[in-house]
Amino acid sequence: MTIATMTPEELRRERASQLVAELKLDALLVTSLDNVRYLTGFTGSSANAIIFRDGRATLFTDPRYTVQSKQQVNCAIRIAKGPLTKAVMAEVARTKISRLGFEPEHLNVARLAALTKSLPPKARLQPASEGLIAKLRMIKDEGEIALIRHAININSQALEQALKRFKPGMTESALAAEIDYQSRKLGADKPAFDTIIAFGERAALPHARPGATKIGVGMVLIDMGAFCGSYASDMTRMVHIGPADAKYKRAYRAVLEAQLAGIAAVRPGATAASVDSATRRTLKKHGLEKEFVHSTGHGLGLEIHEAPRLGKSDKSKLETGMTITIEPGIYIEGWGGIRIEDTVLVTKSGCEILTPTPKDLLEM
Amino acid sequence: MTIATMTPEELRRERASQLVAELKLDALLVTSLDNVRYLTGFTGSSANAIIFRDGRATLFTDPRYTVQSKQQVNCAIRIAKGPLTKAVMAEVARTKISRLGFEPEHLNVARLAALTKSLPPKARLQPASEGLIAKLRMIKDEGEIALIRHAININSQALEQALKRFKPGMTESALAAEIDYQSRKLGADKPAFDTIIAFGERAALPHARPGATKIGVGMVLIDMGAFCGSYASDMTRMVHIGPADAKYKRAYRAVLEAQLAGIAAVRPGATAASVDSATRRTLKKHGLEKEFVHSTGHGLGLEIHEAPRLGKSDKSKLETGMTITIEPGIYIEGWGGIRIEDTVLVTKSGCEILTPTPKDLLEM
Repeated sequence: MTIATMTPEELRRERASQLVAELKLDALLVTSLDNVRYLTGFTGSSANAIIFRDGRATLFTDPRYTVQSKQQVNCAIRIAKGPLTKAVMAEVARTKISRLGFEPEHLNVARLAALTKSLPPKARLQPASEGLIAKLRMIKDEGEIALIRHAININSQALEQALKRFKPGMTESALAAEIDYQSRKLGADKPAFDTIIAFGERAALPHARPGATKIGVGMVLIDMGAFCGSYASDMTRMVHIGPADAKYKRAYRAVLEAQLAGIAAVRPGATAASVDSATRRTLKKHGLEKEFVHSTGHGLGLEIHEAPRLGKSDKSKLETGMTITIEPGIYIEGWGGIRIEDTVLVTKSGCEILTPTPKDLLEM
Repeated sequence: MTIATMTPEELRRERASQLVAELKLDALLVTSLDNVRYLTGFTGSSANAIIFRDGRATLFTDPRYTVQSKQQVNCAIRIAKGPLTKAVMAEVARTKISRLGFEPEHLNVARLAALTKSLPPKARLQPASEGLIAKLRMIKDEGEIALIRHAININSQALEQALKRFKPGMTESALAAEIDYQSRKLGADKPAFDTIIAFGERAALPHARPGATKIGVGMVLIDMGAFCGSYASDMTRMVHIGPADAKYKRAYRAVLEAQLAGIAAVRPGATAASVDSATRRTLKKHGLEKEFVHSTGHGLGLEIHEAPRLGKSDKSKLETGMTITIEPGIYIEGWGGIRIEDTVLVTKSGCEILTPTPKDLLEM
């Protein structure tokens, strides 16, 4: 099989099997559903996979997915009538695996005990390195980038459509519902996370749940994302209903300056931490660094939060093909909060901002 | 503090602390977010809790939730500037815990290793029984039942509203979007799971993802649920667009008969497995038992799937105050599928069907 005729999933399994061989394992048991999706294309809600060091793979799922798995997957499939653990261990015995790696961050202690109990006599289980498949997933291939672009464009269009339907007095949750509905009508599968709409003082809660608060004159923080074809988008924008005062304008400009400084720091070879310190340094200049209570951003792809994490202590180096968010924010109890977030693609020369929505201070 | 003045969360912590004492632990580390929610009321996306054997509790979360945690929680709160693991272990040292239990089904192997590494010298970690808090959660209190009723009523109203807006030629995903939107407009926080709309032959996939398939004459399987105030609802209904043929009618009646037999078998003291065998026996009578590829139902509450599982081998006994689904279904490749699902509350005399939507064969 030449590379040109391989599906993306086959290419990924090829890379994963090289890592399996490097770890001197016979095979890797994949228990993260997102990693199973990445390596096989299967989208059901219950599955495991084994990736063998020679590149073969077996998917395990249950009878609810007999038809769907055949449609989605081009590796071996075992439909488990009972627990997946039993089916997995039958395959371990049949294929004479002796060293089976597992994903320590995606396997709970109870399941490890169950797997260990039914392990064939000559086989043993051992933890693979943490984030083994997550590291592969950091670098997106062309098809993934196209899907992420699509998810981002739908997300931006959904915001535009929803804001057209906004009327003062609308509740936070009604605006959130409108955003999610417009997003679905534009082709999204579902929100990538619970849409955040926080009006006025409530914007001081970085992860506010939209509620019955009516949106009047003041700031509105909107953090929204959509899954399209399994890939996520993520964007935060501020809208000010009515004219904004000087304090808001100053704070908005400071956060925007920090966000642009973060974007300017993105390039292959730069550390994730250096991008974080670029936004933090800018906010410090404005005396706002203590109000910035989270990290600068995160990778996104099949999950809304993936590696790398753009935080103070993440030394991982950015590489071409990574898709990451840049989202500094400030939060002041009793006043409100401001966050501005784009998704960018790391390119050879720096980065491309994928989010098309403008970032000018918006008064409505 | 008398029971009358205790909040539901305090009562639950009281019960949990008794289990902690029975296991001869000093405290339990709660890592399941839903269990943290159940025991403290905190709804953020990152948290752990420690429940002490004397009934005290400490919540651990990060600075994004400083304000929110104060609003939601009436136990001690520690805001972790770094990893939660570090904050948890500082508390273990400070309170001189020597035996700290953990939830083996909610703690991954990597996190256990990290916790073990930073454990104070005299402390040790040991797995608590699996499903310790899940067992408490099976029996719903009055407030929970009221929330579940509310989530169910909104779900049924959303179906009614969405079907009013249905037009032949609408795609599966447009109908799913309409259902989710109506549900949100009626007050739901979000869908309890990805709404399933499967037209015609696609109904043979028990967990179909709604797609671009246009809905014409034929069967439509609709499986939908909503989270309201953190509690879930779950319902499956069939709609036949245009007149149904004899095969569909026969199959529909068989599944409905099985569903009613399942409901009739629900009473305190009956095993979960006996309810499953009641639906299975009825389908066998109609020669359809091989087409029934999943279990009869499941508990629901803070999660869409909770204990008990109404499957062949679940020997757990039903008790007053459990909320469970009864949802037999048949799936025939190349033809389609039929599933009918209600949520019922186990009562002293049997059960109360909470789902108000009619189950007559519906042709539209």
